[in-house]
Amino acid sequence: MRITALAGGVGGARFLRGLRDDLAADPTYGPQGPDPAEITVVVNTADDITLFGLRVCPDLDSVMYTLGGGIDEDRGWGRGSESFVVKEELAAYGAEPQWFGLGDRDLATHIVRTRMLDQGYPLSAVTEALCSRWQPGVRLLPMSDDRVETHVTIGSGEDRRAVHFQEWWVRLRAAEPASAIAPVGIEDARPAPGVLEAIERAQVILLPPSNPVVSIGPVVAVPGVRDALLGAPAPVVGVSPIIGTAPVHGMADACLAALGLPTSAEVVARLYEPFLDGWLVAEQDAGTVVAPSITLRARPLLMSSAEATRALARAAFDLALELAPEVAT
Amino acid sequence: MRITALAGGVGGARFLRGLRDDLAADPTYGPQGPDPAEITVVVNTADDITLFGLRVCPDLDSVMYTLGGGIDEDRGWGRGSESFVVKEELAAYGAEPQWFGLGDRDLATHIVRTRMLDQGYPLSAVTEALCSRWQPGVRLLPMSDDRVETHVTIGSGEDRRAVHFQEWWVRLRAAEPASAIAPVGIEDARPAPGVLEAIERAQVILLPPSNPVVSIGPVVAVPGVRDALLGAPAPVVGVSPIIGTAPVHGMADACLAALGLPTSAEVVARLYEPFLDGWLVAEQDAGTVVAPSITLRARPLLMSSAEATRALARAAFDLALELAPEVAT
Repeated sequence: MRITALAGGVGGARFLRGLRDDLAADPTYGPQGPDPAEITVVVNTADDITLFGLRVCPDLDSVMYTLGGGIDEDRGWGRGSESFVVKEELAAYGAEPQWFGLGDRDLATHIVRTRMLDQGYPLSAVTEALCSRWQPGVRLLPMSDDRVETHVTIGSGEDRRAVHFQEWWVRLRAAEPASAIAPVGIEDARPAPGVLEAIERAQVILLPPSNPVVSIGPVVAVPGVRDALLGAPAPVVGVSPIIGTAPVHGMADACLAALGLPTSAEVVARLYEPFLDGWLVAEQDAGTVVAPSITLRARPLLMSSAEATRALARAAFDLALELAPEVAT
Repeated sequence: MRITALAGGVGGARFLRGLRDDLAADPTYGPQGPDPAEITVVVNTADDITLFGLRVCPDLDSVMYTLGGGIDEDRGWGRGSESFVVKEELAAYGAEPQWFGLGDRDLATHIVRTRMLDQGYPLSAVTEALCSRWQPGVRLLPMSDDRVETHVTIGSGEDRRAVHFQEWWVRLRAAEPASAIAPVGIEDARPAPGVLEAIERAQVILLPPSNPVVSIGPVVAVPGVRDALLGAPAPVVGVSPIIGTAPVHGMADACLAALGLPTSAEVVARLYEPFLDGWLVAEQDAGTVVAPSITLRARPLLMSSAEATRALARAAFDLALELAPEVAT
């Protein structure tokens, strides 16, 4: 069973861990079953950033750490049992920026990654090498080996300026209204090796509850990916990252506002509409209006426990099987 | 009072701290005195190494940390209250080398240095920037802004090979006999800005008890430095790093052996002979034979306490004043 997911950071990572674990325990799709799940995750790299000369890939790392058992479960990003000695020392030198939470354990990942990139390895090869330690149980692909960095336009008049997405997200907590969000470099980015094939050959395609503007959006915007989704034989099932008028996690509302859009499950479904076949929303959003081509289901969306997360992931997977049984078998 | 010293790591750093502290408390050479000491230290960079893409300058850092109050006093290198989280994580990735003790606090220095070097700043400017935090109370100059790396030839026959000095020193503990020690790049290295002037304009020149082969040797071998020492009006006073037939600290014996030389204060004096005016040896080495142009003094050489270290540094300084009172006043 070939499953491909497009994902961002925290929400995507938790959903995918639930999916992996639920299918691993399934008599059909488990490792000993007749149709073992092969999960490929195409991860957003548009919020990557170079800090202190080190290449940081927040979404790739969140997925890798979460599925590899190295995540800080409370924060949802970075390493568990983390210390921040290097960060304190960098601050003592007055080195900027000081607003990014660069932990000591996490730093080793960035050092290994940066060295490999400097040696000429593409990010996809670096990711594979890092995963040889973490064994996430899924195949992790960056959306592209080419550099894409999201810039956010904030302020107005003379004070209008563009900052790196991470500065807006982490330092400003997305509290300063954004008038534009642009993944710089996306037009020239090529899908990483295996990305288009993973979409074209998938039997199930899932969109976890990731940020539609700064996570799933850039992945879809990599030239070739949207067309691959439109042409893919597999059903595409998404999970709303919005309950009512608020994001389940993070600050997707601030991102949608930058596009002039309100925050609702309906709005996100419309962003995905051309390639979306199934849409899971919260029970309170059961009345969400979607295009007739999209099958709506209401399910508990809160990934408040391992069980709830597995149930949600399974609901998305089952909806896909239901929508296109001929592809999935 | 303009004092210039050439130095390596641990021994040089401790000696210089003693010198700085003793002169700071002196009514003549203290900060409020009529002739305040201005100490310039030209530091060996021939044992620098790039590890994990980060530029490490062990001797510069030992001097900077020691004089800046950040050194690990027991080890004599690296930061006090150090942790090794990043190193453990790098090892978990299987990243090599694992034999170098890269501490978390120390790492921040290398990250700041590497970023500045990548931005185009020469090592001398980087060193000045790092010292703005540490305030060592002396002017630290790398011997050169150009890259020099010492390679050590070990093994014999088919197994003969060159390794980086740090690999021989740290991983092999200099236990494997060396047949050659070569500071690669030294012929093309230019003295860093200020190095030649510091020697030419000095009133006192000191050679702390640093390794003559891999610390003081490379500094002197930077084109222009030897001639500056030969032509300098200031007296040159050195402190033997050897007591009897053993190094006071470190493994200078293994380095001298690589040159086919025995280990003694006499041998080291001969290496410095063309420019050496005064030579401090241990009391047991009072019978050391030196050239008639060199004034020999026997003093306790062990820097076993702050007081002993200050006394040794002061003895070297006083010998210089005695040898060339016309230059020193």
